[in-house]
Parts: sequence; structure tokens; C-alpha cells
Amino acid sequence: MKQLYVVGTGPGAMDLVAPRAIEAIKLSTDLVAYGLYLDLLGSVCEGKNRHDLPLGEEIERARLALNLAAQGKITALVSSGDIGIYAMATLVFELLDQQLSGKEDSPQWLEVDIEVVPGISAMQAGAAKIGAMLGHDFCTISLSDLLTPWQTIEKRLHACGQGDFVVSFYNPRSKKRDWQINTARDILLQYRPHSTPVLLGRQLTREDESVTITTLDKLHSDDVDMFTLVSVGNSESRHIMNNDKQWVYTPRGYSKKL
Amino acid sequence: MKQLYVVGTGPGAMDLVAPRAIEAIKLSTDLVAYGLYLDLLGSVCEGKNRHDLPLGEEIERARLALNLAAQGKITALVSSGDIGIYAMATLVFELLDQQLSGKEDSPQWLEVDIEVVPGISAMQAGAAKIGAMLGHDFCTISLSDLLTPWQTIEKRLHACGQGDFVVSFYNPRSKKRDWQINTARDILLQYRPHSTPVLLGRQLTREDESVTITTLDKLHSDDVDMFTLVSVGNSESRHIMNNDKQWVYTPRGYSKKL
Repeated sequence: MKQLYVVGTGPGAMDLVAPRAIEAIKLSTDLVAYGLYLDLLGSVCEGKNRHDLPLGEEIERARLALNLAAQGKITALVSSGDIGIYAMATLVFELLDQQLSGKEDSPQWLEVDIEVVPGISAMQAGAAKIGAMLGHDFCTISLSDLLTPWQTIEKRLHACGQGDFVVSFYNPRSKKRDWQINTARDILLQYRPHSTPVLLGRQLTREDESVTITTLDKLHSDDVDMFTLVSVGNSESRHIMNNDKQWVYTPRGYSKKL
Repeated sequence: MKQLYVVGTGPGAMDLVAPRAIEAIKLSTDLVAYGLYLDLLGSVCEGKNRHDLPLGEEIERARLALNLAAQGKITALVSSGDIGIYAMATLVFELLDQQLSGKEDSPQWLEVDIEVVPGISAMQAGAAKIGAMLGHDFCTISLSDLLTPWQTIEKRLHACGQGDFVVSFYNPRSKKRDWQINTARDILLQYRPHSTPVLLGRQLTREDESVTITTLDKLHSDDVDMFTLVSVGNSESRHIMNNDKQWVYTPRGYSKKL
């Protein structure tokens, strides 16, 4: 058997990692990941062959994982969050597709059994932390224009506005990109109130977690970095205060029955 | 301490339940849920006071959970999936908001500490099962027009089409509603190819799981029931076959680098 596990380990906290993810890592001899993700997992990764590739080498990571598995090493390709959401899973299947189409020269990949293990994504950890921000229809948009043309991203921002979806922005900023989140804000302001609640969740569920609730008009790239999840409510999302506790929720329409 | 845990237990399989969710249930003396969800959890619910309310009594369930917690009983309000996504969490905060606005007469709710525990949602289990369908920007739309006017849902379907989002439909059909999924299909067909891959995932990760991959033009309410997740790819999603194994993935744009 040639086995590749493609594993999401949740936002960071160990008690949000699914047992299936832990089991897949335990069964593996070889782990392929951006090293930080493995550090977060602690002892379960001990004694494994670790293949740490830096950020930016995603294609190499996916190739390596497929190659190791094809060599008969039980391998786990690991990322934080849900590995199927803006992470490595799709690249594994894209490579497989390339091979099936004759555009790669790695027929050994076709013998690998692949199992994808989903995980809790940052938007879910963020929404739960402050209440129920994802309580009604929502979308996710990556603001990285390295792989997606900005024109496509902009089209989605307008669609998000027109549809009044709650939206979570992944990759809102990087060292080289800073203007996208401000442009996204300006587009959304064409469709929803200045006072729309916004969550800035940095390092969610990790030791240095910080959570800020602000409003759409005050959203600014200065307050965002590559570890920040930005979620913007829809036009009906509510920011409430109970004593010193703040919550944001998006109603589903029960109010007419209450 | 007056404590209410609002807990999502994932799609069904025990090994996709986060340890934090199990811990919250263990700490509780009282569980409020639609009974089936508790049955799926097995022995962890033994010895607890179970308050099973039928489907449709969501408001009563949220009130009961807040009341029990306010009485000093450590309480867990439980649903499958992510309780923050089309589930009970938002209703708890809506009730709290009503109380804060003076529209309810339950000031004891304001003394309850609330913690929301996120879980893996059906769309994530479905996408992982067949590969990486959520590999690029996506949205979710509930097709239930019991709480949301159909006009709003239709607006979101068009926005989803215009933005070319992968989309997961929750509540695609019920005993009393059958036409919505067919209308959703017809709207999306205005924007994306007939051959767009569609996942029908029924009872995902549970004993009687069934998974079907079809195309957008063949999507029909006859093949969908209230236990079915329907996810529709975007215009670039790919359905590939490797020997007897089928996969669907949505590329992120790495192809120009491959």
C-alpha cells in the first residue's frame, strides 16, 4: 500500500485538532509541512522524518509528498486550518491531474492512495471566539493576487457585496502586498454600512492570539498582517455588549418568530 | 459560575469531533440538542440530563439552554457540524441581543458565560472525501426560505454565479420544500458550464454515507433530501479519474507555475 494523508490540523490549539488528523500523523513515517505547523503539534511529530519546506515552496512540497508516498513511505502532508481551504490539498490533485493529462513524468503518483482529513478553518475559530459571525450565508475570498488575477478577486468582492454575504478574507496581506485589504474595504463600503462589524483575528487559538472587533470603515491594512483573519459581517450582523463581553452574530431571520 | 457551552460536533464520525467539544460535553450536566446528534456521540453523553427537542423547535432549544445555564447547571447546547454555521449558535446571541434590547424578560441570561466550540462542517467533510472541491474562493447558501425571503436567496444565487464561487447548499430540500434546488441549478447554469462538477454527499462520514459526483445540468431535487449536502464547483473545478478513484478539485492557479 502506498499512502498519502493530506491533513489539516485546525487553527492552532491542540484541542481543536481532530483525532483523525492525529491518527494519520501517527501512522506516517514522513511528514511534509511548513515547519511551524509541525511545531504546533508537539510530541505527536517526534521520531518522524520531517521534511520542512519554507513558505513559497508549495509546489515542491506537494511533489515531495507524492514522491515519498510513491516510494512506499507512509506520508502525511500537513497544514494548519483545513488543508482543503486555501491550502495544499488542491495542489496534490492538480499535480495528479497533470500526470493523468501527460504533462508530468511521474506515473508512480498514480499508485498512491490519497486520503484528505479536513480541519477547522480560521474563519470558524474566529467566528466562534466572538459568537456567531458565520450564522448566515457567507463566502471566503483570498486577497492574494500571486495566483489569482486581481480582476477576478475584484469581481468576487463586488459579487460578495451584491449578495450581502458575510465574508472572510484569507491572505489579507503579506510582506510584499499591503493595498488589497484597503481596496476590498472600499468596494464593500459601496454595499454595506460603515458600521458593519469586522473581526481581526490574529494567531487564532494560539498562545499569542489577539482578537479585535472594529467596523468596516475603520478596517485598515496597518492593523492586519499575514497571520490575521479578517471577517466582515453582512448588512444585518450585530455587535452587542453584555457587561465587559463583546459578541458579533449574524442573524438568520428568527426575529420575526421571537 | 454559570456556563453555557455551544458546541459543534462535526459531520458525524467520532474521529472528526474536536477534543474541546468532547471536554465541554463532559463538563456539562445538561445537554440540549436534537436527539439524533447526541446518539451519534455515544457514551460521552451517558449520565447527563438530556433535553431532546424535535426539529423545528430551535427557539425553544436556545431558550432552554440559556435558562438551564442561568439556573446554575453547566449546560451544553449541541449540534452536528459547526454550530456557528446554519445552526444554533446565532440564535443564542439573538436571544441575548433581544434581552439586552429589553424585548425579552430573562435578565438571568446576562449572567451566563458563553463559549462557542467550532466544528468541522459538512461542506468540509464532503470536499475532503472527494479531494479538494473548496480549493478556491467559495460561498455557502441555505436554500430554506422559511426564515430568509426567497428574493434574498435568489439574489445570492446570482451573486454566486457572477462571482464564480464554488458553492455549498445547506438545507437543499425538506419534506415540504422541493423546488429550490432545481431553481438554484437553473440560475447557476446561466453562469457556468453544464459540465460543472457537483457533489451530492448524504449522511457524510456516517455509517450510511453515500457520495455521488454528477454535473450541474443533471442536478435534480429527486436525488437530494434533507440529509444531503450539495456542493457545486466553480467554472474551473475539475473532475478527474485515476483508475477506479474519482476526485474533484478546484485549482488555485498554480497551473502557470507547473
